[in-house]
Amino acid sequence: MPPALDFFFELASTYSYPAAMRIGGLAQTAGVTVRWRPFLLGPIFKARGWDNSPFNLYPDKGRYMWRDLERVTAALGLPFQRPDPFPQSSLLAARVAHVGLVQGWGEAFCRAVYTAEFGAGRSIADNDVIAELLRGLEVAPEPVLARAQSHEIKAKLRTETEAAQRLGIFGAPSFVIGEELFWGNDRLEAALAWARARSG
Amino acid sequence: MPPALDFFFELASTYSYPAAMRIGGLAQTAGVTVRWRPFLLGPIFKARGWDNSPFNLYPDKGRYMWRDLERVTAALGLPFQRPDPFPQSSLLAARVAHVGLVQGWGEAFCRAVYTAEFGAGRSIADNDVIAELLRGLEVAPEPVLARAQSHEIKAKLRTETEAAQRLGIFGAPSFVIGEELFWGNDRLEAALAWARARSG
Repeated sequence: MPPALDFFFELASTYSYPAAMRIGGLAQTAGVTVRWRPFLLGPIFKARGWDNSPFNLYPDKGRYMWRDLERVTAALGLPFQRPDPFPQSSLLAARVAHVGLVQGWGEAFCRAVYTAEFGAGRSIADNDVIAELLRGLEVAPEPVLARAQSHEIKAKLRTETEAAQRLGIFGAPSFVIGEELFWGNDRLEAALAWARARSG
Repeated sequence: MPPALDFFFELASTYSYPAAMRIGGLAQTAGVTVRWRPFLLGPIFKARGWDNSPFNLYPDKGRYMWRDLERVTAALGLPFQRPDPFPQSSLLAARVAHVGLVQGWGEAFCRAVYTAEFGAGRSIADNDVIAELLRGLEVAPEPVLARAQSHEIKAKLRTETEAAQRLGIFGAPSFVIGEELFWGNDRLEAALAWARARSG
């Protein structure tokens, strides 16, 4: 068995952006298989009594995060533009991502979503934007957008969010190897090293 | 002017432990002067409406933090033992640290506090423990403990906490170069690089 890691991310999450852009190359170098698992942070924040992003609830932390993200993306050579409103509703994008992860274009779609949202400040809640991103991947939007509203895909996203909750996940991105949890873009390298060291 | 960085830390803060143990060597290599500025997080958390550490208020985050700190310290070869209660009252230790930073043994004292607290799980609120740590540095405890209760030292710690607040600091460790804020042990390298790049 090659080493494997579960990559839990939320398409509205700021630090999931650099993680999603970095994980492919780093995992390949480390020889680790990555399972992309988009989920929703909203229900997890709600269970904690939060009705908004902690970056909005605590403005000092929010101010810091935006400046830090600007530095982090600059260091990686990634474009950065703050979307308004923040957080974006990621429900549609997350459902489409789950369609894509079955059909083989899911990872590229997630990178496209992050680049639109945090690289160009675009609205990912917008059907037209999602359709445009799909066309950019040479995927016909109409059947995908219909499939995204199917019972099966809706249930899949709910199940993944519940799985994240059961694993003790409280933020994104999170990386899981067995029961070992790593939280944050800053822990990507440590998580990959852990996966590599613990594989058969 | 050699590049300089302000190191804001709280003696009860978990991630300040690895930062305090690492900063001396890394700053020397980078050619950056570090000003050690112990402050209290309590008043900053109180202003946010928290009467306890967020790691206690949010148990999932707390559970994760202890496991993560165990991994971080193991990777650095630092001893780790969880103190009980957490957080420790750091008022006495912070005042003594300010005495020591004037007298030349402050940085070594802070490292000794962290090693006792998070390396051996000892109580840093205890006068006898602080006296023992001072003797370990060949500093006579009695005059220092008396000086720590002086009006001047009490005022100094308050002033430093207010300075942290004014700089937008909301957690520890934090690193400040001018108005540029970096938060967390994970940002130590980036902060040193920033200080180095921006110096005359």
